[in-house]
Amino acid sequence: MNSFGKVFKVNIFGESHGHSVGICIDGCPPGIEIEPEDFETDLSRRRSGAKGTTTRREPDIPEILSGIYENRTTGSPITIIFKNKDTRSKDYNFRDIPRPGHADFVALRKYNNFNDDRGGGHFSGRITVGLVAAGVIAKKIISECNITAKLEKAGDRTDIENAVQEAFKSSDSIGGLLSCKVFGIPVGWGEPFFESVESLISHAVFSIPGIKGIEFGAGFEAAKMKGSEHNDLFISENGKTKTNHAGGILGGITNGNDIVFRVAAKPTSAISQEQKTYNFKTKKIDILKITGRHDTCIALRMPVVIEAVTAIVLADLKIRS
Amino acid sequence: MNSFGKVFKVNIFGESHGHSVGICIDGCPPGIEIEPEDFETDLSRRRSGAKGTTTRREPDIPEILSGIYENRTTGSPITIIFKNKDTRSKDYNFRDIPRPGHADFVALRKYNNFNDDRGGGHFSGRITVGLVAAGVIAKKIISECNITAKLEKAGDRTDIENAVQEAFKSSDSIGGLLSCKVFGIPVGWGEPFFESVESLISHAVFSIPGIKGIEFGAGFEAAKMKGSEHNDLFISENGKTKTNHAGGILGGITNGNDIVFRVAAKPTSAISQEQKTYNFKTKKIDILKITGRHDTCIALRMPVVIEAVTAIVLADLKIRS
Amino acid sequence: MNSFGKVFKVNIFGESHGHSVGICIDGCPPGIEIEPEDFETDLSRRRSGAKGTTTRREPDIPEILSGIYENRTTGSPITIIFKNKDTRSKDYNFRDIPRPGHADFVALRKYNNFNDDRGGGHFSGRITVGLVAAGVIAKKIISECNITAKLEKAGDRTDIENAVQEAFKSSDSIGGLLSCKVFGIPVGWGEPFFESVESLISHAVFSIPGIKGIEFGAGFEAAKMKGSEHNDLFISENGKTKTNHAGGILGGITNGNDIVFRVAAKPTSAISQEQKTYNFKTKKIDILKITGRHDTCIALRMPVVIEAVTAIVLADLKIRS
Amino acid sequence: MNSFGKVFKVNIFGESHGHSVGICIDGCPPGIEIEPEDFETDLSRRRSGAKGTTTRREPDIPEILSGIYENRTTGSPITIIFKNKDTRSKDYNFRDIPRPGHADFVALRKYNNFNDDRGGGHFSGRITVGLVAAGVIAKKIISECNITAKLEKAGDRTDIENAVQEAFKSSDSIGGLLSCKVFGIPVGWGEPFFESVESLISHAVFSIPGIKGIEFGAGFEAAKMKGSEHNDLFISENGKTKTNHAGGILGGITNGNDIVFRVAAKPTSAISQEQKTYNFKTKKIDILKITGRHDTCIALRMPVVIEAVTAIVLADLKIRS
Repeated sequence: MNSFGKVFKVNIFGESHGHSVGICIDGCPPGIEIEPEDFETDLSRRRSGAKGTTTRREPDIPEILSGIYENRTTGSPITIIFKNKDTRSKDYNFRDIPRPGHADFVALRKYNNFNDDRGGGHFSGRITVGLVAAGVIAKKIISECNITAKLEKAGDRTDIENAVQEAFKSSDSIGGLLSCKVFGIPVGWGEPFFESVESLISHAVFSIPGIKGIEFGAGFEAAKMKGSEHNDLFISENGKTKTNHAGGILGGITNGNDIVFRVAAKPTSAISQEQKTYNFKTKKIDILKITGRHDTCIALRMPVVIEAVTAIVLADLKIRS
Repeated sequence: MNSFGKVFKVNIFGESHGHSVGICIDGCPPGIEIEPEDFETDLSRRRSGAKGTTTRREPDIPEILSGIYENRTTGSPITIIFKNKDTRSKDYNFRDIPRPGHADFVALRKYNNFNDDRGGGHFSGRITVGLVAAGVIAKKIISECNITAKLEKAGDRTDIENAVQEAFKSSDSIGGLLSCKVFGIPVGWGEPFFESVESLISHAVFSIPGIKGIEFGAGFEAAKMKGSEHNDLFISENGKTKTNHAGGILGGITNGNDIVFRVAAKPTSAISQEQKTYNFKTKKIDILKITGRHDTCIALRMPVVIEAVTAIVLADLKIRS
Repeated sequence: MNSFGKVFKVNIFGESHGHSVGICIDGCPPGIEIEPEDFETDLSRRRSGAKGTTTRREPDIPEILSGIYENRTTGSPITIIFKNKDTRSKDYNFRDIPRPGHADFVALRKYNNFNDDRGGGHFSGRITVGLVAAGVIAKKIISECNITAKLEKAGDRTDIENAVQEAFKSSDSIGGLLSCKVFGIPVGWGEPFFESVESLISHAVFSIPGIKGIEFGAGFEAAKMKGSEHNDLFISENGKTKTNHAGGILGGITNGNDIVFRVAAKPTSAISQEQKTYNFKTKKIDILKITGRHDTCIALRMPVVIEAVTAIVLADLKIRS
Repeated sequence: MNSFGKVFKVNIFGESHGHSVGICIDGCPPGIEIEPEDFETDLSRRRSGAKGTTTRREPDIPEILSGIYENRTTGSPITIIFKNKDTRSKDYNFRDIPRPGHADFVALRKYNNFNDDRGGGHFSGRITVGLVAAGVIAKKIISECNITAKLEKAGDRTDIENAVQEAFKSSDSIGGLLSCKVFGIPVGWGEPFFESVESLISHAVFSIPGIKGIEFGAGFEAAKMKGSEHNDLFISENGKTKTNHAGGILGGITNGNDIVFRVAAKPTSAISQEQKTYNFKTKKIDILKITGRHDTCIALRMPVVIEAVTAIVLADLKIRS
């Protein structure tokens, strides 16, 4: 389903080439100052336009339908929509030859062919624009924290711009490795087991289309370590530790050190070079050449989305803590 | 909180040295055959006893309090408890010098010192015995699937037994890398975004104490790949693909190929060698020597727990699909 | 919070004099035919215009933002909004002298004065227009059932029109008694205890502003009866009973007989005659004269809202049964 | 399903003649003092033994399995069970001729005959013993409030004892009218719409087997009133009103006046006189004579159950407010 959170709760909706995409946020405390321009910084970080991003140009103007009055949250549900402007649905028709690596095939099967398939429909990364808007509000709720995500590598290279450029030239796409840190987080957010901070952040992060891995603190390296190496020794009364292999989380609960995690984004599945795949109409292997507009490296636009979902998780935990 | 699932829902409870630990399962369909001995195979895989596991010996006899009648589920909540037998609470007292890497510190802060700290209390890995019992039932619900998890490496070594033995000799502990595969899964389970199969499995897996990373299909390798390499080309009408970099999941939804994921377990935080850490009473750095009974490699006992939470996720998705 | 349902789930939003009011519906099955004109019958039953309803005129044109494609549901969230057109916010200012019987007072306290108080804001009955739209879709999901609600009495009188007219003439308002029947419902929807049909319908019905009582089957009369009178004797294989004191529900579960319930609606709290109430600014008793536009008998517009929430409950139960 | 609540959440389980019945409570704050004897007063109010109650004698000794340590809540889930002692399952067998007014028929259909039908199984009023235990804890959470429920009438008579005695003599059962008041409740608990106090209390109250109606404040009388009569005029700064027709709730939110509601309980469906009903095996009308032990007036034991579920609702709202 399309909702997430227990008290601070987000509901996403919309299709890539439909009327609009948007978000409905329930459980937001009253009195938080929100000016329309507050959304601009984060929305622009997600917007396309840079090299390696799609040539589809969406202004992404947030229209606030409810829940904000005289520039403050009211305590009632906040609905924000973004009208779709730059759509070219003729570019798309993948019912017979679903794109490899894309959701076309599963969507057709799951929804008995009734899904809106224009531009990927509800499976489009475009839906994440609402998450970014919710993240702007969530960040204000957890004003004691500072969340910073960035793209560390594109295709295992730190000269990211060049790596993307080369992929673009070869009509290909490229994956990326992202990192995220949360500074200033207090002790005691999260719960053991099913509401561990790792459970909730991973749940939210894997909701972003294209994510295939996440690790906290030492992460997969921890599997290789001894306890004597991995254990973070406490050094002060507020719980600060000498190292931070735990990534700021013990027993599912924040320990007052920075939350640290890394995320793997797969290469965009839509590429403009030819692909040999199955034609479900002719029931034979066929050649697919995708002609629409696509991101060469979707990971370029992801840091702000990762920040947003992290903020959404933490705002919910703060309200309940 | 301590519940997970939407229709097939599990609630865990208990403390390591309290009366018992257990699970309450709601939403289980009626008519599923369950004999008491059905639990034995999976429970024994989780049980300690092998080299590298704790010397605490718990018989783990499931006592079924409700929901099963004449060896079949009734449709009503199923509660199963496991009495704690082999407890030595004097071994533990970590209120002044919380163990590094363990939940002692955050539990004291979060619960204002009211937590039951004997043997790690509710934060103990012992609580997972209830998950294994629920997993046995969940596996019967998804009888079309076969879930197999195993420990691939201990501390980056495939000669796992030797690696664990060395860690034990040096009064240390060691992490591990696990893999899990689900065979026989149909197309169409899971949802886009917040109920993506990755979101739900990662949520459940990170509920297991000690997990610090998860990756699906190509996982972190996907970040290094080009789209032309990563895309799984369809080869037949049922959605089978030539490769399986997606790990059986597209757009959050199963595509009919095997679900594949890997998980990183950190080394047990409790080690018997001395550790230099903070004494919160004297407010000075101090020496901590832990004398209780602990696993050298908790990952040895984890495969069946990972299978169980995966089965719980999939049973819930199947019932709702 | 503003969501209801487990799988078929509605989220309402909006304020009386804000940009718009609306609903976001998650979990709707794909393939259900919805033409824009399908909403008209039910929306017009809720609309004002008849004698005894407010002079505020809202066209209530549903704008579908997502989830419907080529006149069919897609399986993705359906968002429908209704722009507010006929607003006169100067009519309202009740921060100092909150209207007796209205939510003004509690809203100010609960939301620290940040609530949008224009026209009752989010507490307005106007928000129910979204429920009616969701009800139209829910009714299509439970196509085997037929739900009919009607106003039985206004102020204990069956000559409803006259009763309302008299209240209007005396600058007063008047309450009403409504009944609702569901025909054609199969055996087995609902659950014991917390998802009993009575629990869910009452939960939904009391969400409608102004409802103060509900009773199923014999209802409050049942309290006066003997078991030998109240018991509904089975007369046929399909569970039909001679009488229907149970209102179609046994042990929380539908028994195949008609669901029957009655609902009490209080008189509209906003009346145009003078009221002696507390002035929270001067801290003295004061005279309040309300000059805005209001319904004399809000119950006149309620039958279709009651049908809608009943359909929403039953659609969710059907999908899960 | 068998859980209720958002943060303070209860899960009930058990069957009338199974091993035990019980409750698992999640989200209880740490540090609340609970002595085993704290349960006794409320449990004894629910226990049978008085005239008009069943001759089944259950000691109802609460066994605390988890979540309480050194007589205080720990913040972890609290599981309490009550073993079934006095069961005579041979008394029951209603698969062929389901008892009129009872859940036998719907349970068989819903659970494909796999339900545990001994003594009503999971549909038994016995399951409410766990609710009473949870209510004891919930009442401690909302220590500012005082909840008092009582039986006002049995069968429309205030000489309740006589009314019950007469019903008993005629091998019949009798219904009852109950009232509940909450004193000391602050302004601001509850939410508009789906988490209105009326929605949540009615949801919880209708979970109790045998309840067929509920009304708040003036309730069904409100339907007969004019606004000028019904409106509660404010008389002081803290929101106190001259009258309390609203039953302490405006716009779904507590207004600082007492919460007041009334509840209708139907007569016990199991009566010892002969009943003419359908035999689903012979497919003919048949005579049923029930020989087990039953309450003549189940409403006698209900006040404490109504208090319990009200406390559970309010504890959850308080924690979240």
